[in-house]
Amino acid sequence: MKIINQGVCAAQGFKASGIHAGIRQNNSKLDLALIVSEVEAEVAAVYTKNQVKAAPIYLTQEHLKNGKARAVICNSGNANACTSDGEAIARETCEILANQLHISPQDIIVASTGVIGQNLPIKPFADNIPRLIDELGNKSSLAAEAIMTTDLQAKEIAVSFEINGIECKIGGIAKGSGMIHPNMGTMLVFITTDCAISSKMLQKALSTDVEDSFNMISVDGDTSTNDMVCILANGLAGNEKIVEEGSDYDVFTQALNKITVYFSKMIAADGEGATKLLECKVTGANSKIDARKIAKSVISSSLVKAAFFGADANWGRILSAIGNSEANIDLSDIQIALKSKQGEIIVCENGMSVDFSEELAKKILLEDEITILVTLNQGVDFAVAWGCDLTYDYVKINGDYRS
Amino acid sequence: MKIINQGVCAAQGFKASGIHAGIRQNNSKLDLALIVSEVEAEVAAVYTKNQVKAAPIYLTQEHLKNGKARAVICNSGNANACTSDGEAIARETCEILANQLHISPQDIIVASTGVIGQNLPIKPFADNIPRLIDELGNKSSLAAEAIMTTDLQAKEIAVSFEINGIECKIGGIAKGSGMIHPNMGTMLVFITTDCAISSKMLQKALSTDVEDSFNMISVDGDTSTNDMVCILANGLAGNEKIVEEGSDYDVFTQALNKITVYFSKMIAADGEGATKLLECKVTGANSKIDARKIAKSVISSSLVKAAFFGADANWGRILSAIGNSEANIDLSDIQIALKSKQGEIIVCENGMSVDFSEELAKKILLEDEITILVTLNQGVDFAVAWGCDLTYDYVKINGDYRS
Repeated sequence: MKIINQGVCAAQGFKASGIHAGIRQNNSKLDLALIVSEVEAEVAAVYTKNQVKAAPIYLTQEHLKNGKARAVICNSGNANACTSDGEAIARETCEILANQLHISPQDIIVASTGVIGQNLPIKPFADNIPRLIDELGNKSSLAAEAIMTTDLQAKEIAVSFEINGIECKIGGIAKGSGMIHPNMGTMLVFITTDCAISSKMLQKALSTDVEDSFNMISVDGDTSTNDMVCILANGLAGNEKIVEEGSDYDVFTQALNKITVYFSKMIAADGEGATKLLECKVTGANSKIDARKIAKSVISSSLVKAAFFGADANWGRILSAIGNSEANIDLSDIQIALKSKQGEIIVCENGMSVDFSEELAKKILLEDEITILVTLNQGVDFAVAWGCDLTYDYVKINGDYRS
Repeated sequence: MKIINQGVCAAQGFKASGIHAGIRQNNSKLDLALIVSEVEAEVAAVYTKNQVKAAPIYLTQEHLKNGKARAVICNSGNANACTSDGEAIARETCEILANQLHISPQDIIVASTGVIGQNLPIKPFADNIPRLIDELGNKSSLAAEAIMTTDLQAKEIAVSFEINGIECKIGGIAKGSGMIHPNMGTMLVFITTDCAISSKMLQKALSTDVEDSFNMISVDGDTSTNDMVCILANGLAGNEKIVEEGSDYDVFTQALNKITVYFSKMIAADGEGATKLLECKVTGANSKIDARKIAKSVISSSLVKAAFFGADANWGRILSAIGNSEANIDLSDIQIALKSKQGEIIVCENGMSVDFSEELAKKILLEDEITILVTLNQGVDFAVAWGCDLTYDYVKINGDYRS
């Protein structure tokens, strides 16, 4: 497996584009993205668990019932959520696009991200979809840019891998930032691959993967109304189609995991206002579920997050967050260490304070990627979660997002 | 029922004191509080649900097994949590105090609040308990001050009420600020009353009450290792002892609720860095549990809290938080309104956007006490939760708490 260029366009037969369509006022910000597969693709998706879902989520769920798709259209600047005509707008968008691409509206994945509860006009779509199609090409990075909201960095990656000597590629684009939390949803991720795989196995691979990737990120504990992860597999690599578990499936899931973990870390590091990527590795748990609960609880604690912003080795807050996790723990077995490229330091042993060098701790914590190592000494299960620090800028960004 | 002075000393037979004992470096900050009842009192308590509990919590639980107590001692500046000698220190504190008050150590409630994981020395207690006892008097406000950490305001209140023509009093002191969240714990509250009531009925009254008072506050989603609410009833008012439900019990629970709701709102308003008290009233729910879940979810959302800091009527975030609550909802029935002393404005109807005056909304949101009214239109159950906005200062306070 190796990392390659071109993100969502790396796999054979996929093109993308990103333009400013006037959905946002700001002329310099791209706001409409398109991804198209030359041929029909198998598809799998996971959606936000928020009970309040945006119109495009419902429509995409309807469209993907047959497990096939050809294109993804996504706008930023407006979530198309909680308005009276949201469904009609999403439907009309798909119809306009389908007509001009000469495909069925059923084959379109539609997504939106931005402010909730403001009517999304159809005009920018009607006026600009022809240009969006004209622009299609090797433009993964423009598509990645067009789906950004408060993200600071466009997110794309691709890898190549081999199945029985045949080279396959998988790549994607993603957006994250605020409202990133468990229970899927939590962001927009569009992945494409030319690997031949049935939609059933694709869904299995994706659903399994998100449990240890996107569902292990937390930026602020909120889950959005709009978010989804979808993957299109058009089979153009020419490998024998994966229709069951086995070594081919395993190679595919490893490649998929490379993409999803990369995005998970990038999304956490680019959380609103974040200055640091926090990783919490829990080992020695009695169960996978407990390990995940603890890792998530640590990474989600506002007190922990604020302490890391201040480079303060306040391990008591980490221990307190472990205690709040509802996982089974034995306090007297817990060890906590902090690690970055400056070194590693144990700050809590047997659930109690230990003497440690505050100077070294500070040095470790001033880095912008920090790992919190929690060793439970109870079993063999483990989990990793990713988050970010809580900063002045998170408050600033969210204090007046609509303006 | 009427509000009276003297807080935790309002009820007959209770004295209090608060001094600087040198647990904190800062000489000007009181750090040790004592409350003593002339006679043995019936007692009830609820404790933090965090699995990581501080030593004083365990010792207090042990001491209160017989349902009786005479005194409360509480220090600030150090949580006496997660250290090797925590239990010994708490035990020794009780022994020193018991000796000098000529009571049993079993009759002492011991509590601590402050930094986790730093050894608490016994010396400040040994040296200063005599003075702490000498100072006992009508000093509720000094005791309230001595238990503060990052609180900006000392919190005390008392009310008088009548049971069969006999005047009873109930009052208390409290501390809150960071780490305030559901599942009890969440703060320190010491309540005293001269009403005669059995410890069984006292526990029932307290356990029921906290479900709609302290458990409905959220400052930052974290639950502390140290927090407890306890109530001492010494019976000196001379009413016929309450030993079962009935009208006397009802009068008592109403008086108790006056105290607990007052503290709940004060603690929420004084959340770390908070500039606004947010109240979320949910009505028309199918069940009490759903109503509570929704109210808590709204008040706990970082995005909602930051929006209120910015006086931004971003109702989509409120709706999204409702959707994240795991309560049963029908989106198309939901109405959301915002209210303060400047007026009331509907911002969402039938789960959708409605036109509203941004100018009036801004005016309403610039007040420092705001109510979010969520009407579910499904049943008759309701709940109220309290929280605060998320501000730059929350981050500042928590970025370097230990320094």
